[in-house]
Amino acid sequence: MRPFGDRLHDAVERVGNPCVVGLDPHLAHLPDEYAVARDPSASRAERARAIGDFLCEIIDAAAGKVPAVKPQSAFFEVFGADGVAEFERVVAASKDAGLLVIGDVKRGDIGSTAAAYAQAFLRGIEGQDPRTLCDSITVNPYLGSDSVAPIVDECRATGGGMYVLVRTSNPSSAEFQALSTEGCEGGPALLADRVAGAVERWGQDLVGDSGWSSVGAVVGATHPDELARLRRLMPQTPLLLPGYGAQGAGAADIVGGFGDGLQGALVNSSRGILFAGKNQPEKHWKDAAAGAMDAMAAELRAALL
Amino acid sequence: MRPFGDRLHDAVERVGNPCVVGLDPHLAHLPDEYAVARDPSASRAERARAIGDFLCEIIDAAAGKVPAVKPQSAFFEVFGADGVAEFERVVAASKDAGLLVIGDVKRGDIGSTAAAYAQAFLRGIEGQDPRTLCDSITVNPYLGSDSVAPIVDECRATGGGMYVLVRTSNPSSAEFQALSTEGCEGGPALLADRVAGAVERWGQDLVGDSGWSSVGAVVGATHPDELARLRRLMPQTPLLLPGYGAQGAGAADIVGGFGDGLQGALVNSSRGILFAGKNQPEKHWKDAAAGAMDAMAAELRAALL
Repeated sequence: MRPFGDRLHDAVERVGNPCVVGLDPHLAHLPDEYAVARDPSASRAERARAIGDFLCEIIDAAAGKVPAVKPQSAFFEVFGADGVAEFERVVAASKDAGLLVIGDVKRGDIGSTAAAYAQAFLRGIEGQDPRTLCDSITVNPYLGSDSVAPIVDECRATGGGMYVLVRTSNPSSAEFQALSTEGCEGGPALLADRVAGAVERWGQDLVGDSGWSSVGAVVGATHPDELARLRRLMPQTPLLLPGYGAQGAGAADIVGGFGDGLQGALVNSSRGILFAGKNQPEKHWKDAAAGAMDAMAAELRAALL
Repeated sequence: MRPFGDRLHDAVERVGNPCVVGLDPHLAHLPDEYAVARDPSASRAERARAIGDFLCEIIDAAAGKVPAVKPQSAFFEVFGADGVAEFERVVAASKDAGLLVIGDVKRGDIGSTAAAYAQAFLRGIEGQDPRTLCDSITVNPYLGSDSVAPIVDECRATGGGMYVLVRTSNPSSAEFQALSTEGCEGGPALLADRVAGAVERWGQDLVGDSGWSSVGAVVGATHPDELARLRRLMPQTPLLLPGYGAQGAGAADIVGGFGDGLQGALVNSSRGILFAGKNQPEKHWKDAAAGAMDAMAAELRAALL
């Protein structure tokens, strides 16, 4: 398989925008026709299936419009093994639709365990349908280099990718990530900047023909002031920018995260797309979601080109 | 349900030791009778079931001997939905055996997503068999307070518990966790110490009759020099100490993590117990595992009492 960084580059060129549709199926917001997902008298498998069915419609709307989707594991794990079966179905449907899949799993553990997570999401076991595997996953860096290395190795072996949390989009993210740290080469630096430097190193020998690595970084679009600095610290690292839309960031906020044109970053919107129909009762929810994707793509193109 | 901190206190009193058996079913080490778990021609469900069957025997050996078990989610997730079904079976078997279950899932995400993880592991959905829920889970703090708050809330509501990663047992853990940080009240401090202070605060109103909170902290037993300091920074926080046995720490290394007697910390051993039979071919593997639990309990009692 070609390296994730190159596959991502090509997918963005193909569709002409850097949008990611976040598949975060909040139960409370699902359209009424999927109300069984909220029905306490339905079986767990029925409830999970309704979520998968809803997301397969979203994927159908996203096909050809955006380069990638990002299913959020937590909303599937709520339904235990039944939910994980639907996660696998949603991943396979996304791949069938020609979409890259970034599994938002935020795993992070000691080396031997990190290797198991890398296998779970990027390599699979013998005989497993490769359509159920993610193209890339999100990873937590708190445990340091030896917890990330097995996932980097798996990316090298499989053509998979990873996005390491550097500066997240939530309000408390500064609490630890923006602490000023001492005692390293190069003088004081924010913790997030140290992690950024590590991410660029971890991905150094996974830079493909496109000039972009398969090791990426998550930086909240809610921190436009930090985005340009982090981009400079990670010149070959593709960024994943959550926080657009429902979390408050707009098109002007994300420009600093990009390289040339549309390349170098993906911008994620979840609720703003999936539940766009909430505020447009005159439209079918699927048309509203498709319209929200088109609008976001146009906004980002206008800001970037 | 009584608070996790108190239930843990009582369980340690009852069995007379603070040992946790880590349920990390590394495929390569499973006894030959579970070789189907390694068989590429077997179905995924068959392979996952072999792991569950093995761990149910370990749980049977652990019942009454130790207060808790700690299933490692990654080794189940390797088998996707089939593995998660076995995770649920192993959790239920542990509860039936009277063992507390610490789900080693190391989740961490923005607030709304963290709430979904808390539901997945501590609350469940309507009608779910409560035996499939964990008593406590491990949590990654990198995203800060608002990512942890929904899990604290769930602990308050359900009597569940959590262990926040503070200083992990792996060799690279110092890379970020031991950075010296500035710019906060109280002058410079290691990142791990800042996180420790936050953990003690997060758990403050979940301190039960036992004097211990339901919000705990993970501190590697591989850092004996730091253990006593972190214990002082978190006087009411129960610790979970991995790294004993296969990772190199011994009984003398863990003493600083404890409060009075056997209380205040749990010590985890995974491979050293599960695969004790590897070095004792004259014994059945289950007897070897039970013997390793007894030996570890005796070692810790000797060091602590």
